[in-house]
Amino acid sequence: MVLHFLKNKSFLFQNIFYTGICIAALPFFTACEQSVAKEGENLKLENLEDLAQYVDPFIGTAKMGHTYPGATVPFGSIQLSPDTDTIPYAVDGKYNPDVYKYCAGYQYDDETIVGFSHTHFSGTGHSDLGDFLIMPTTGELKLNPGTETDPDSGYRSRFSHDDETAEPGYYSVLLKDYNIKAEMTASSRVGMHQYTFPKAGTSHIILDLVAGIYNYDDKNVWTFVRVENDTLVTGYRQTNGWARTRKVYFALSFDKPFKNYGRERYDQQVYGGFWRKFDQSRNFPEIAGEKIRMYFDFDTQANEKVKVKLAISPVSAEGALENMKKEIPHWNFEQVKKEARYEWNKELNKVIVKIDKREEMVNFYTAMYHAFLGPTEYMDTDGQYRGIDQGIHQAEGFTNYTSFSLWDTYRALHPLFNILQPKRNAHMVESMMAHSDQSVHTMLPVWSHYANENWCMIGYHSVSVIADAIVKGNAEFDQERALDAMVQTAKTGYYDGLQYYMDMGYVPEDKNGASVSKTLEYAYDDWAIAQAAKKLGRKDIYQEFIKRSENYRNVYDSKSGFMRPKLSDGSFKNEFDALDTHGQGFIEGNAWNYSLYVPHAPAEMIEMMGGKEKFSQHLDSLFTMDLPDKYFANTEDISQEGIIGNYVHGNEPSHHIIYLYNWTNTPWKAQDKIRMVLKDQYQSGADGLGGNDDFGQMSAWYIFSSLGFYPVAPGSEEYALGSPAVNEATINLENGKKFRVIAQNQSDENVFVEKVELNGKKLDKPFIYHSDIMKGGELKFYMTGTSTSL
Amino acid sequence: MVLHFLKNKSFLFQNIFYTGICIAALPFFTACEQSVAKEGENLKLENLEDLAQYVDPFIGTAKMGHTYPGATVPFGSIQLSPDTDTIPYAVDGKYNPDVYKYCAGYQYDDETIVGFSHTHFSGTGHSDLGDFLIMPTTGELKLNPGTETDPDSGYRSRFSHDDETAEPGYYSVLLKDYNIKAEMTASSRVGMHQYTFPKAGTSHIILDLVAGIYNYDDKNVWTFVRVENDTLVTGYRQTNGWARTRKVYFALSFDKPFKNYGRERYDQQVYGGFWRKFDQSRNFPEIAGEKIRMYFDFDTQANEKVKVKLAISPVSAEGALENMKKEIPHWNFEQVKKEARYEWNKELNKVIVKIDKREEMVNFYTAMYHAFLGPTEYMDTDGQYRGIDQGIHQAEGFTNYTSFSLWDTYRALHPLFNILQPKRNAHMVESMMAHSDQSVHTMLPVWSHYANENWCMIGYHSVSVIADAIVKGNAEFDQERALDAMVQTAKTGYYDGLQYYMDMGYVPEDKNGASVSKTLEYAYDDWAIAQAAKKLGRKDIYQEFIKRSENYRNVYDSKSGFMRPKLSDGSFKNEFDALDTHGQGFIEGNAWNYSLYVPHAPAEMIEMMGGKEKFSQHLDSLFTMDLPDKYFANTEDISQEGIIGNYVHGNEPSHHIIYLYNWTNTPWKAQDKIRMVLKDQYQSGADGLGGNDDFGQMSAWYIFSSLGFYPVAPGSEEYALGSPAVNEATINLENGKKFRVIAQNQSDENVFVEKVELNGKKLDKPFIYHSDIMKGGELKFYMTGTSTSL
Repeated sequence: MVLHFLKNKSFLFQNIFYTGICIAALPFFTACEQSVAKEGENLKLENLEDLAQYVDPFIGTAKMGHTYPGATVPFGSIQLSPDTDTIPYAVDGKYNPDVYKYCAGYQYDDETIVGFSHTHFSGTGHSDLGDFLIMPTTGELKLNPGTETDPDSGYRSRFSHDDETAEPGYYSVLLKDYNIKAEMTASSRVGMHQYTFPKAGTSHIILDLVAGIYNYDDKNVWTFVRVENDTLVTGYRQTNGWARTRKVYFALSFDKPFKNYGRERYDQQVYGGFWRKFDQSRNFPEIAGEKIRMYFDFDTQANEKVKVKLAISPVSAEGALENMKKEIPHWNFEQVKKEARYEWNKELNKVIVKIDKREEMVNFYTAMYHAFLGPTEYMDTDGQYRGIDQGIHQAEGFTNYTSFSLWDTYRALHPLFNILQPKRNAHMVESMMAHSDQSVHTMLPVWSHYANENWCMIGYHSVSVIADAIVKGNAEFDQERALDAMVQTAKTGYYDGLQYYMDMGYVPEDKNGASVSKTLEYAYDDWAIAQAAKKLGRKDIYQEFIKRSENYRNVYDSKSGFMRPKLSDGSFKNEFDALDTHGQGFIEGNAWNYSLYVPHAPAEMIEMMGGKEKFSQHLDSLFTMDLPDKYFANTEDISQEGIIGNYVHGNEPSHHIIYLYNWTNTPWKAQDKIRMVLKDQYQSGADGLGGNDDFGQMSAWYIFSSLGFYPVAPGSEEYALGSPAVNEATINLENGKKFRVIAQNQSDENVFVEKVELNGKKLDKPFIYHSDIMKGGELKFYMTGTSTSL
Repeated sequence: MVLHFLKNKSFLFQNIFYTGICIAALPFFTACEQSVAKEGENLKLENLEDLAQYVDPFIGTAKMGHTYPGATVPFGSIQLSPDTDTIPYAVDGKYNPDVYKYCAGYQYDDETIVGFSHTHFSGTGHSDLGDFLIMPTTGELKLNPGTETDPDSGYRSRFSHDDETAEPGYYSVLLKDYNIKAEMTASSRVGMHQYTFPKAGTSHIILDLVAGIYNYDDKNVWTFVRVENDTLVTGYRQTNGWARTRKVYFALSFDKPFKNYGRERYDQQVYGGFWRKFDQSRNFPEIAGEKIRMYFDFDTQANEKVKVKLAISPVSAEGALENMKKEIPHWNFEQVKKEARYEWNKELNKVIVKIDKREEMVNFYTAMYHAFLGPTEYMDTDGQYRGIDQGIHQAEGFTNYTSFSLWDTYRALHPLFNILQPKRNAHMVESMMAHSDQSVHTMLPVWSHYANENWCMIGYHSVSVIADAIVKGNAEFDQERALDAMVQTAKTGYYDGLQYYMDMGYVPEDKNGASVSKTLEYAYDDWAIAQAAKKLGRKDIYQEFIKRSENYRNVYDSKSGFMRPKLSDGSFKNEFDALDTHGQGFIEGNAWNYSLYVPHAPAEMIEMMGGKEKFSQHLDSLFTMDLPDKYFANTEDISQEGIIGNYVHGNEPSHHIIYLYNWTNTPWKAQDKIRMVLKDQYQSGADGLGGNDDFGQMSAWYIFSSLGFYPVAPGSEEYALGSPAVNEATINLENGKKFRVIAQNQSDENVFVEKVELNGKKLDKPFIYHSDIMKGGELKFYMTGTSTSL
């Protein structure tokens, strides 16, 4: 059944239509239905469909998805979201593996909420943030968070998913221990809370400046707070974590004066000095220390709402206050909520899809939602931001972004942006170039957040993002300067085995671990640099880097048929297990998967590996083989469901693999596998994601693959065709044009592609090009239930 | 013998004249003689006398003087000085009393130098700073400082005073362990080092970012360093000490590229993250952590000089670099040294004195030198500075100053500035007003440094400094705004017993300790506010505060004849020892001394205490009584020599006491005592000061008293006359006028004043007024050897 979703005037019809599903299904649907019904009365979407109704922010919040359900706007600085635990990164100096679950602060199966903090990563495989946790309570004041097993020992509260709602730009939950309804919404730089207190009495709002994500002893470097008056508090929190030196300023405003306030310090103080002449614990307006928790007391009436706004700034407390004044100068919670939803609908409407099942609509638009959560804006409304040199800079002519999870997002997310978010993507490139200018290494970001390089994972994939933008003509930035930064980055010898790579053509495993992964990714990155150089007419650079891009050949062991770690004496490492992901020269992938990582030269790689036929069979066995149990425990970042045979979709190095069939004579073999992954690895429900969403990369794969094409080698204009899961899709391009995808006769059974027409003309190979999309037009897949030899 | 010192063209003559003394006397004289001889050849002073030759920066560096011998310019931000130890403030959480000796980093009796750091307080009784310690070494690299008892265990070096020179703007020492000659000079924001290495080989320059003054575990909050290139390093150091949240940025430049560099971390790191992929210890340009020491290696030739510049900024590393470029854009060490000396001579020439003995010349000009060391400039060359709100501000129309040791300096130093440094003093008031505007307490500074309030000692003596400037007509600032800030400060109820004082007219000892000292000082401060209000025509404020200023009466116990702690029930505290300085309701003074602290109403106080005759005898006994030994140990901040009878000159509450004789019928009794104090408490030589110099307050007493007058009550125009120790003095006022003091027939024996003429007219009381000085003119004392009943 093909359901045509109607414009907002027919919301009522939709609601009626879906009532059955909503009641029967997950809590989300109930929430969704209520929300839509309410919004339907007021929301003016002006030709925008209310696609926000299909977004389920809970997807990925269970298991390893590492998403958060809280309130945020597209690419917003604030992610105001509940934290269900803030367990320490290390206990007694030893890594605590449970911390990994809390990368985004929230685990769906938890039964308590500690509070609501303002900054969260989405889907990352390591973490940080969780700044400025706020929690409303009543009764006896407790300033420690308590534990999940004994929530009454602290200020945290029990909650139930029955009383919880999450939708784009809005989150709500009943804090059962206090019977407080907590609601939150956000603009880019301001989080807004609305707490409805149950009965007359003394209520508290706690500001926990110790709380944080991936916390450990001494993560808090310093905090500084000023109680400016009885409704305004300012300050900053400085941490040393994944970001080595991170400082976030805040301005916190209440819509009602507090009666009293105070703080406790949880750090050891050797020297208190003449501050001891004050009672600093109560109603003393200047507070500083390593570990501080504060409280604010209010007299509240039954059902009284107390509203809170908290703005952040990378620059100064004054900047945070200005951000608050500019973005939310009022106390109208509903207006902020409505505006946030409007912002989301603007972004979601960039792709209008038609799919039979609501569940798949939910999956698609939740993927769109997750894809547009980051990178996040990182500057004040006046354009000032903190650079990686820790100095303050002015963004001239661009919006500065941070939180670049590049090892993940260069693959499909930034290519998706080059279609759906070209302006933002160009600004992201500007932000990367500013990073390089300000970096003492004069390197483009590897994994950067909050004016820090955290060096996470490998490669220098900024060059891929920049090359992709240049090659696709989405480069409203100084391209020569960008190319210089790419080259400079790729020649930083002390970076992660790079000098060996430059000198020897590969990274020797005995000198630098994960050497094969590094060699392969450097080779791809170098190819990307070469493509940019070619486009900019820099033949010298092209020659240099196209040569480097062939280094993948240096780690191919024709005997075993795998990429294999090589030692500095030129010999391959002796003991070698192609199934293991540890100690075999790879990182977050095994030789089986990673050996296929030559995205820039699939044809050459296939030739090297024995030709198309052999390779096609080799690929088959990846999906069908029986991976012995012992290897599961070793496979990072994904649940067991994230693995199909030995194909690991839950981790990024495999993301292009299925599409490699397009370079064999059996492209049809890709088609059912794509559909299988779309179905199995992306399900609705909190536990729906097979692995970390990785700041939108997993979602970008979903969006591309659902639409029927995928960018195997960013930096090229080419997209490999797959098997669309939508019936129809319209991509509304920023240039005003529309690109339509039609999958005729598409169904769960009809996953094979009989033929494809681009603007009515049959394609003779399973590829399209970026310009085909940007010109607008129609890509029509004729679907069938039987495989074809197209 | 009266010696008329000649202008600089006769340096040669002076040198010959003094040769005998120089050889025979303290090391200083040798240094002095060498220096003068060298300077004499080049220095162009253009009508300035080279009075810098009389400054001995070593005075006060032994025992409790707490001065430093290093290089600085008047009121300069940089104090580049050797630290002879950097012992911890606390050991195992327990206060280490030895740290007190190292308030200024240097103790004359020590035999090793740890290195040269860039920021030092002068003469304070608590401490902080010691930022960016640099030490040149040769041979095996050692990165820990070692101990005084085993200097070879670390990088420190033995030294001898025979190889040490200190003069205004220049310091030099031979580091014996390495045979390196270390020389240093400074501009306001830049310290310049010149190291002469002994022989060809590998030399090191160490940058110790852990070292600091009043250091303790966890004092270092964070440091951040970037090696920008092979001659430039930038970064910051953030500490939590006397200043709770202090951050100083630096830019460090070498005149020769280093070969290699590296760092060690001395903090415990729980999380190292992906930085572990680098060898961060060597030649890795980005460094951050709590406790870091760095080294830079050079190949040096025999006798090769390596020069170093280190600039600081309160704002940013970029600001520090700009400061360096603007202040010292070159590498000419001699030029910087010459300019620093010129700056000093400009200031020292504000008073030209003639005194018989060179030793007294040295004492006088060293006092002038110490008086002009602070408050220090605290802003970048572009006027940006860090405010107490930790935000960045622009100084509009004034130079921003910091390090206000106000409990000390309001007494005589700021009054001295109102004569010799009126422009700077008005800018200091502007700085205090900015502090108040930016303070969350909206309070003027108590003891502030580096964008921090440390709350040291008692009272709110900013109001005295401001009132003194207003009353004396040196108020090129918004006086209404200043008055508002004064009133606001004096009404901050949560400050140190102030609410009790406002409610009850005194601070009750059972509620807030040191209650008598606080009551008395608040009363004086309130009088100062009243004087400013009167001058500005604000009768309401005048009435309110003149009433408060009489509160001193509320703690006078007519039975014992002393000020005495009162309890909240209105009764005096029972057990009471008027000689003890602890637990008796006073701070840094006993009842004997502190009871005389009513500087604004001496006549009324004398009447209250039984009239002039009785009071005169009471004063006599203060100086003649035999203080039992047990009380010495309890007397803070001064060596035993700092006490005359029970009169404690080494601490400030007594500084006006001798002059109280002027309000009795026996003003002559003051005269010999003043001379005794001038002689006994201010001697040449490292151990010459009887107590902490207290950022120039002790020195300001010396200058005033040497000139024959003293400001007993700042905020009044009145100066009490004493007994001048100079033969003649010319005060060169900023308004172009000159005020001369002549002490006819003055000698060590002729300490009594027979009569005084102001502009030829005999004075009939022992007072003059500020306007008398500012108009220019001549104050002539006729001295005699016998006391008189004038």
